[in-house]
Amino acid sequence: MTTDSTEERVLAAVRERRERVNAAIDEDLPLVAPERLWEASRYLLKAGGKRLRPTVSLLTAEAIADVPPLSVDYRQFPALDGGEVDVMAGALSLEVIQSFTLIHDDIMDDDALRRGVPAVHKAYDVDTAILAGDTLYSTAFEMMADTGAAPENGLEAMRMLAETCTRICEGQALDVEFERRRDVLPDEYLEMVESKTAVLYGDAAATPAVLLDADDAVVDALYAYGINSGSAFQIQDDVLDLTVPSAKLGKQRGSDLVGNKETLITLHARQQGVDVDGLVDADDAESLTDADVEDAVATLNEVGSIEYAREKAYSLVDESKRNLEALPDNEARSLLAAIAEYLISRGY
Amino acid sequence: MTTDSTEERVLAAVRERRERVNAAIDEDLPLVAPERLWEASRYLLKAGGKRLRPTVSLLTAEAIADVPPLSVDYRQFPALDGGEVDVMAGALSLEVIQSFTLIHDDIMDDDALRRGVPAVHKAYDVDTAILAGDTLYSTAFEMMADTGAAPENGLEAMRMLAETCTRICEGQALDVEFERRRDVLPDEYLEMVESKTAVLYGDAAATPAVLLDADDAVVDALYAYGINSGSAFQIQDDVLDLTVPSAKLGKQRGSDLVGNKETLITLHARQQGVDVDGLVDADDAESLTDADVEDAVATLNEVGSIEYAREKAYSLVDESKRNLEALPDNEARSLLAAIAEYLISRGY
Repeated sequence: MTTDSTEERVLAAVRERRERVNAAIDEDLPLVAPERLWEASRYLLKAGGKRLRPTVSLLTAEAIADVPPLSVDYRQFPALDGGEVDVMAGALSLEVIQSFTLIHDDIMDDDALRRGVPAVHKAYDVDTAILAGDTLYSTAFEMMADTGAAPENGLEAMRMLAETCTRICEGQALDVEFERRRDVLPDEYLEMVESKTAVLYGDAAATPAVLLDADDAVVDALYAYGINSGSAFQIQDDVLDLTVPSAKLGKQRGSDLVGNKETLITLHARQQGVDVDGLVDADDAESLTDADVEDAVATLNEVGSIEYAREKAYSLVDESKRNLEALPDNEARSLLAAIAEYLISRGY
Repeated sequence: MTTDSTEERVLAAVRERRERVNAAIDEDLPLVAPERLWEASRYLLKAGGKRLRPTVSLLTAEAIADVPPLSVDYRQFPALDGGEVDVMAGALSLEVIQSFTLIHDDIMDDDALRRGVPAVHKAYDVDTAILAGDTLYSTAFEMMADTGAAPENGLEAMRMLAETCTRICEGQALDVEFERRRDVLPDEYLEMVESKTAVLYGDAAATPAVLLDADDAVVDALYAYGINSGSAFQIQDDVLDLTVPSAKLGKQRGSDLVGNKETLITLHARQQGVDVDGLVDADDAESLTDADVEDAVATLNEVGSIEYAREKAYSLVDESKRNLEALPDNEARSLLAAIAEYLISRGY
């Protein structure tokens, strides 16, 4: 489905905007007193990241305004109501929220590494990491309050941001709850994925539409684009874990099969009567062998579970591309479609 | 300074509004799925609390609108621009933020009890407490987005709320930083107290003014009222720790002298050349005796440190009452003045 040129186009679009996003981080999140707090708050944002969500946001603004990519200053972007909007601040707000959730998630999961550097609660300490996350949380709302959009649009963007954050928390809670349950339905899993991962893509895509005064139908379509492509990304991630060789994955293939992690694949297999808990004997990813995984994959293929998940991811991407038809047909829209395809072609 | 009738009036005002605030919590924060998350998020709010900040907010609305206390539905409150505003949602938003900060602070300080019940991270676990705090954080912004105020006023209230939260985080970081430093200046301490404690009072008082479309001068004066009275409360708390008998305090008198906690009193004493670290020998509050405290208090009185802090608290309350002159002269305003006095007459 994805061609090399799709990937190249997406990576170029991300790269071309990354410098501007990084510069905006330094402008809008300066290192001020109390320095240790702000240093810890900026730490993960400064450690890197593809800036995929801000790229989606910035491309959406360009698609709505129907301007050539990178032709207009993101800080003074022409709104449809004649005003000027800092769409970069809106895009950055979502990246800052993403950073806050990663910092708190890493505490909860006790993950030691993130983006190749120690997690904030390891580089500093748990207390500082909690507080750094809390600081980013409100900073994101401060950014969204200062886009210069018409007040009703600015307020709506703030409301959407707040709802998005609440849903992310609910998604995280569902994820934890599902580890304890063995009767999760595929639809419940999709709801969890939507809350935990996809709403932030939905908000990243819809926020510029709100700020720039686009019609409600455009706002809704872009939100759906983000939800559909974000959900597809997460589902395909589960497929790739089972189908891509370990060397290419950068981790043991099939590691999701160890422990109590449910995926759309295992949930489907359970419904087909597969003894999912007995698929592999290994208790940790280290003792898992490729032969174990081959056997498990064969069983999952027999009942069509991997194909079920793959088809779900591809149909969600198709749906997300149809959502984009609410936008003018232009280069930025074409790049947004490419991003949706790219999201299911890679495992990052 | 405070008479019994002041205290009675304040307690009556708080009591008369508490039922409505508690009912609003159930309306605006219902126990929905995922239930464990929302149960943990509501836990501390449902455990009680005086509802002092919401009371300040609701009284401010009544003072601005110049209506008799409790005569108008807080959910449909008349704004000066002719609209109707849910000032209860605004008041509750601040209470929800307060609850989030307590949940995360209790994790950081590893405090086991809060409001007579186990802290959320003890009643549940640390991960759930982090997530419950995060959930309340965005819920507060959702509430503030839905007051029905004119969009420019709603947006401004959201911006103020975000700034308030960032300052609370900064105040918490300064508090931690100051425990490691021995060269903190009294003005730095006042800045910390303002950020950590007083801005939430400032926001509670100013939010209704913003939502109801009051003049900027009224907004600023009410914010100052909250900052001044909130700071006075915290400073007086330090005075009471040294001057009120243990039995009445409900904890060992002078317990602030143990450990590395700085107060305006100890910082002033340091400036006068007192060996603050040698004031008491005890290493914990349990081994502290009243005789130790008497000696320490005598030393602090000699250099005027306790009187310095007490005068600072009283002058801040006087200032906060002058701030109220921006409001019409009515019963609600008189109750706000009484609350400022009450804040320094009690140690809660």
